[in-house]
Amino acid sequence: MSDNSQSISSLIDQWIRPEVRSLSAYHVPDAGGMIKLDAMENPYAWPDAISGSWMEALKKAQINRYPDPGAHQLKQTIKEAFDLPENSGVLLGNGSDELIQMLAMALSAKDRVVMSVEPSFVMYRMIALMVGMEYVGVPLKDDYSINIDSTIAAIKKHNPAVIFLAYPNNPTGNLYSEDAIRSIIETSRGLVVVDEAYYAFAGASLVNWLEKYNNLLVMRTVSKMGMAGLRLGYLIGDCQWLEQIDKMRLPYNIGVLTQVTAQLALEHIEIFDQQTRQICKDRESLYTALQGIDEIEVYETHANFILFRLKTLSSRSVFDALKTQGVLIKNLGDNEGPLHKCLRVTVGTEGENQKFLHALKYVLQKV
Amino acid sequence: MSDNSQSISSLIDQWIRPEVRSLSAYHVPDAGGMIKLDAMENPYAWPDAISGSWMEALKKAQINRYPDPGAHQLKQTIKEAFDLPENSGVLLGNGSDELIQMLAMALSAKDRVVMSVEPSFVMYRMIALMVGMEYVGVPLKDDYSINIDSTIAAIKKHNPAVIFLAYPNNPTGNLYSEDAIRSIIETSRGLVVVDEAYYAFAGASLVNWLEKYNNLLVMRTVSKMGMAGLRLGYLIGDCQWLEQIDKMRLPYNIGVLTQVTAQLALEHIEIFDQQTRQICKDRESLYTALQGIDEIEVYETHANFILFRLKTLSSRSVFDALKTQGVLIKNLGDNEGPLHKCLRVTVGTEGENQKFLHALKYVLQKV
Repeated sequence: MSDNSQSISSLIDQWIRPEVRSLSAYHVPDAGGMIKLDAMENPYAWPDAISGSWMEALKKAQINRYPDPGAHQLKQTIKEAFDLPENSGVLLGNGSDELIQMLAMALSAKDRVVMSVEPSFVMYRMIALMVGMEYVGVPLKDDYSINIDSTIAAIKKHNPAVIFLAYPNNPTGNLYSEDAIRSIIETSRGLVVVDEAYYAFAGASLVNWLEKYNNLLVMRTVSKMGMAGLRLGYLIGDCQWLEQIDKMRLPYNIGVLTQVTAQLALEHIEIFDQQTRQICKDRESLYTALQGIDEIEVYETHANFILFRLKTLSSRSVFDALKTQGVLIKNLGDNEGPLHKCLRVTVGTEGENQKFLHALKYVLQKV
Repeated sequence: MSDNSQSISSLIDQWIRPEVRSLSAYHVPDAGGMIKLDAMENPYAWPDAISGSWMEALKKAQINRYPDPGAHQLKQTIKEAFDLPENSGVLLGNGSDELIQMLAMALSAKDRVVMSVEPSFVMYRMIALMVGMEYVGVPLKDDYSINIDSTIAAIKKHNPAVIFLAYPNNPTGNLYSEDAIRSIIETSRGLVVVDEAYYAFAGASLVNWLEKYNNLLVMRTVSKMGMAGLRLGYLIGDCQWLEQIDKMRLPYNIGVLTQVTAQLALEHIEIFDQQTRQICKDRESLYTALQGIDEIEVYETHANFILFRLKTLSSRSVFDALKTQGVLIKNLGDNEGPLHKCLRVTVGTEGENQKFLHALKYVLQKV
């Protein structure tokens, strides 16, 4: 009798890695009809001003052909639109997620470690697990700044192949001190990847450090500046590094429609920059309003979201009550630990922010 | 002095896996202006008949929002458009490439083997290397049929976690015998993935075997049916398997524009099916014409391409001379081995096929 008479569940037990079996899939809640302030999206629809030229560009796109595997034109446009260092190269991913995966695959080897600080972006840990690397997360201090002593000690102990630092950090919103990042880069014998997904809202970037540090790469995305649907991230750094990491790229990873659409959008980057400035302005109003609410503690932010902590109520109860009011934000506070009782709200349009504030005040009185 | 004073090349030597360092990146030639018959693309531009409704659908797409991570509507449309078994699930990838990568990551463990037959699709081996698995390729017979004795022996020896079988095979174009595939599935203790990238041109599919075999999955793509630029592959099989493999999926892997565009195209699948029928018809004419050329041997095909072997000339010289004539096909024959002196031509439009034939005859006299 052949072994394929085995049940699927016993085949899965035999073949799927145990750490994969025990994993829960990444859960994304359905926002159906709610005010969506959960995912750090830019709230503004695709600009009318470029709709016409976008349609023209799409009509010319050759959907029946494979995309340009090197996405040469788009890479050049990215370098110009974001004024990247002349000597740096650019590598494109299907979102930053795919870039993290390529990096991890290129570096993966038995007992090698991916490191980050915690709490931070969950995909660093998830992707380390996917590629079979160890993950070490070093706790941030209570104010979410880097604990430099324990971080340096962890680097010396684990000699990580790569350290990911989100700058500003997600989900906390703060910028780490340059001194802390500098000493991490200088202590680390492996790569340090500064993830600048939210840099546009911070007015801060370490991209100019690239020429100083051979073990530094900077990663960004167009997701937070109005193009989350496209899936386009870019890694910036020395071409010698990128040439190696590029070998882990699936040859046609960036589709034709993304190449055409991002190209057009970045040729009109001033429209998106204006939206970013509006979001930063509205963030200040929202921040001030949240600070006026007694029941919560609000954290400093340099991103397009604000983290706040409930002083007494549970985050789950407030999250659920907000949903009932038609507002979806992110609940991070179910468990004990650094995010206990924390919620994260993305900055939306002025009207959305007002509705959220109104709902929050109502809920805090009622729950 | 800190270690980051190391040169980048010495850092690369230290950290990038040796098997990655020694890899050459996947090379895709520039077709600039040539008749492009190198990449198994459908030669027909996006149909005018759906251009209007496509533009309408795109205008409604929320590019500023993350895509539906589960791509629920598109999955349902795929099940209906391709009349997939009621009990099977569907998992979407950014091309089949990403599905192969997810499968390999879910199964990867020390000393585990990915197996295929050779020559076949090169990404099976490439992706095994990316995720750090061993790869074993079992040679096909001289006529490119499966050598069942050596294949069964290799399965028993290596106990592969997954075997990939392209059906029809690329780059050879033939369909393996059902008996051979059946005995591979029944011998294998791990997964068997039948890659039906070219099934539309074969009039053959093993998708109905899914209910019979617990260790079988079927993979397909919309690339060859006119949508190579979209990057959309789908894996069909039991939901228990797909649930595990789905955990290796980056959450937003299929962008908004691909979801919207594929959705619309598959609602008008008859247009693409008609193109496929035309390609099959033109393949027969091209095949007959090639058979009439003394200097080459032509192989049976069930795909949208034809493999042929030069009896005396080198494939490189003919490939280069065709390029000079403005026709780009694929040269596979530089090295000794099963594809020595072989070239592969994709079936284009009737006019493109004629120009290719004309150029080939001219070149064979001249080189």
